[in-house]
Amino acid sequence: MNKTRLEAFSDGVLAIIITIMVLEIKMPHDSSFAALSALLPTFFGYMLSFVFVGIYWVNHHHLVHVVNRVSAGIMWANLNLLFWLSLVPFATAWMGENHFAANTVAVYAVLLNVCGISYTILQRTIMSCHHLSNELLSAMKKQSKKGIVSLIGYTTALGFAFLQPIVSELLFVAVAILWLIPDKNIEQALKD
Amino acid sequence: MNKTRLEAFSDGVLAIIITIMVLEIKMPHDSSFAALSALLPTFFGYMLSFVFVGIYWVNHHHLVHVVNRVSAGIMWANLNLLFWLSLVPFATAWMGENHFAANTVAVYAVLLNVCGISYTILQRTIMSCHHLSNELLSAMKKQSKKGIVSLIGYTTALGFAFLQPIVSELLFVAVAILWLIPDKNIEQALKD
Amino acid sequence: MNKTRLEAFSDGVLAIIITIMVLEIKMPHDSSFAALSALLPTFFGYMLSFVFVGIYWVNHHHLVHVVNRVSAGIMWANLNLLFWLSLVPFATAWMGENHFAANTVAVYAVLLNVCGISYTILQRTIMSCHHLSNELLSAMKKQSKKGIVSLIGYTTALGFAFLQPIVSELLFVAVAILWLIPDKNIEQALKD
Amino acid sequence: MNKTRLEAFSDGVLAIIITIMVLEIKMPHDSSFAALSALLPTFFGYMLSFVFVGIYWVNHHHLVHVVNRVSAGIMWANLNLLFWLSLVPFATAWMGENHFAANTVAVYAVLLNVCGISYTILQRTIMSCHHLSNELLSAMKKQSKKGIVSLIGYTTALGFAFLQPIVSELLFVAVAILWLIPDKNIEQALKD
Repeated sequence: MNKTRLEAFSDGVLAIIITIMVLEIKMPHDSSFAALSALLPTFFGYMLSFVFVGIYWVNHHHLVHVVNRVSAGIMWANLNLLFWLSLVPFATAWMGENHFAANTVAVYAVLLNVCGISYTILQRTIMSCHHLSNELLSAMKKQSKKGIVSLIGYTTALGFAFLQPIVSELLFVAVAILWLIPDKNIEQALKD
Repeated sequence: MNKTRLEAFSDGVLAIIITIMVLEIKMPHDSSFAALSALLPTFFGYMLSFVFVGIYWVNHHHLVHVVNRVSAGIMWANLNLLFWLSLVPFATAWMGENHFAANTVAVYAVLLNVCGISYTILQRTIMSCHHLSNELLSAMKKQSKKGIVSLIGYTTALGFAFLQPIVSELLFVAVAILWLIPDKNIEQALKD
Repeated sequence: MNKTRLEAFSDGVLAIIITIMVLEIKMPHDSSFAALSALLPTFFGYMLSFVFVGIYWVNHHHLVHVVNRVSAGIMWANLNLLFWLSLVPFATAWMGENHFAANTVAVYAVLLNVCGISYTILQRTIMSCHHLSNELLSAMKKQSKKGIVSLIGYTTALGFAFLQPIVSELLFVAVAILWLIPDKNIEQALKD
Repeated sequence: MNKTRLEAFSDGVLAIIITIMVLEIKMPHDSSFAALSALLPTFFGYMLSFVFVGIYWVNHHHLVHVVNRVSAGIMWANLNLLFWLSLVPFATAWMGENHFAANTVAVYAVLLNVCGISYTILQRTIMSCHHLSNELLSAMKKQSKKGIVSLIGYTTALGFAFLQPIVSELLFVAVAILWLIPDKNIEQALKD
């Protein structure tokens, strides 16, 4: 079993997810800047989701790098992750079109939580059937910590969705920034 | 003739099929949970079809793995399979939007049958022009049995569509579960 | 300059072209078979275009196989071909939705002509900067003859569009069948 | 860290961007040529954007060719470029549908500017962490000059958008032609 097709298929699906979101930015009725600026919430949502899917792609890239034997378990854990990520364009558009209304922000927070858990399942599945070096294991554990902080962030965002949606959005941005900071440990461990 | 492009093209088409289905989940009119829950049949249909296309991807991955010479026959048998799979998003959306009405479930069952037969044609085409090991042949025969059980399942589902569509849906789920159980034989045979 | 990305990008674009056509099959208003059968012209158009794009993919596969040096000329001749092919979903949907009205069939015939000419340009560009074996050259010349017959077929179809569109459709089908017959020469020449 | 997935993912996203633009060419209401010709501005916009995205793909191909170590910085600079390019279909469709109205041309010019700057950022990121040969460096510097001329072209087009949008369009075409002229230097330098 080679992993080339696992990577190719995942790259294909992630590339489509990240790109079809832009189809949800509906054309304004006229050419005025007022009509264009009405799209700002949708645009902000698109940007946020683009960054989140981008983070998953970067992490997926790192994670699958250590795989050398693709089992059925890994294939299905991967498809499970892709399934939940494929719902991101829908949740993003619903949130943007309703100007970050409470319910939509809550659903978005739940979806990010489910995606995070699915990623963890994939990570565990891969770790359980590969003998990894100690450096890589400790780098992955550090990443798992980031993952737990993210889940706490999303869950807090879920709570604030019904109180102050703006706080939820700031929490989404904060989690994204947490992941944007390059992770020297994992790069170093993979290089060794 | 190398098989890299056969795999790349198939992965591309399967990735698009599995992802554009989500475009059929139409945005609710407002941000209420009632509007969202009205999408549940569509969502269930999407999930079912995602799993079916995922199963085809996993099996395709295994099947093409044994190919070492891509003939025109294999290319066209493959395009035939992709053609029928490309209709899955349409059939799924039609079924979801009409809340699993008899006709739509019947068409879905017919389509799954045609996809299954197309897969069998591809399998036969590949087997007829490759000398496969005995282990692989017996693993493939076991998979063919699963295929026949699936066709019986889909055909029974077709009959129940006009009596009790819910039975048809349960049959779809049962067939999906049949394929989700990892097939140790084929993995073992491919490894040898 | 390696050709991996030329192939990957072309496969990506062709995979999307062949798949997004299905998005043009608009959902029927209800679950009746009458509503479904109203989609038959659209479905027939989709099938025809799927086969045409499939033929281009198979031929492209053969053609790029002989490339070992990707020049800017080849990249642009390839993008030119992809551009015209990308209009196939539009022309197909317009033709299907208008039940093969004269104008739409004529535009479809013109587009197939332009695609054919673009393919010839790509073929010439590749042949002009590669030293090919005599077997391959004679196989390609045989394919060029098929190409000329196709252009004559499309042009005749263009004429009949305004007299008897059904004749044009039969000509499209005839050209497709011409290409579906496996080309042993090119496979043999590439193998040597 | 290998660059295969960076290329595969970028090719996927660029292939989708270049192809989904065609979905914005809305079906005419009837089969008359008058209805078809009403789509000419949209079609011209599509052609222009296809060429621009094609140029980015060709240059991206050249640029990533020199990469041998993919860092987190390169991945994010690449995602940043893909983000802005993903907005091209939206800007193109808005411009085409409003028949190149002043505002839409201005937004298109701004977007091309931002894409150009993002490309420069990716180029700088790659150059800063790779030791490149002198020939390659001088070829890249020549390309940077073309980039600066393009930015001047886009900015001038932005100014003319509110005076004479036709001048802006001619400037877009001129910049495209500038890039279509094959760059022998970079091909030569990459070959050495």
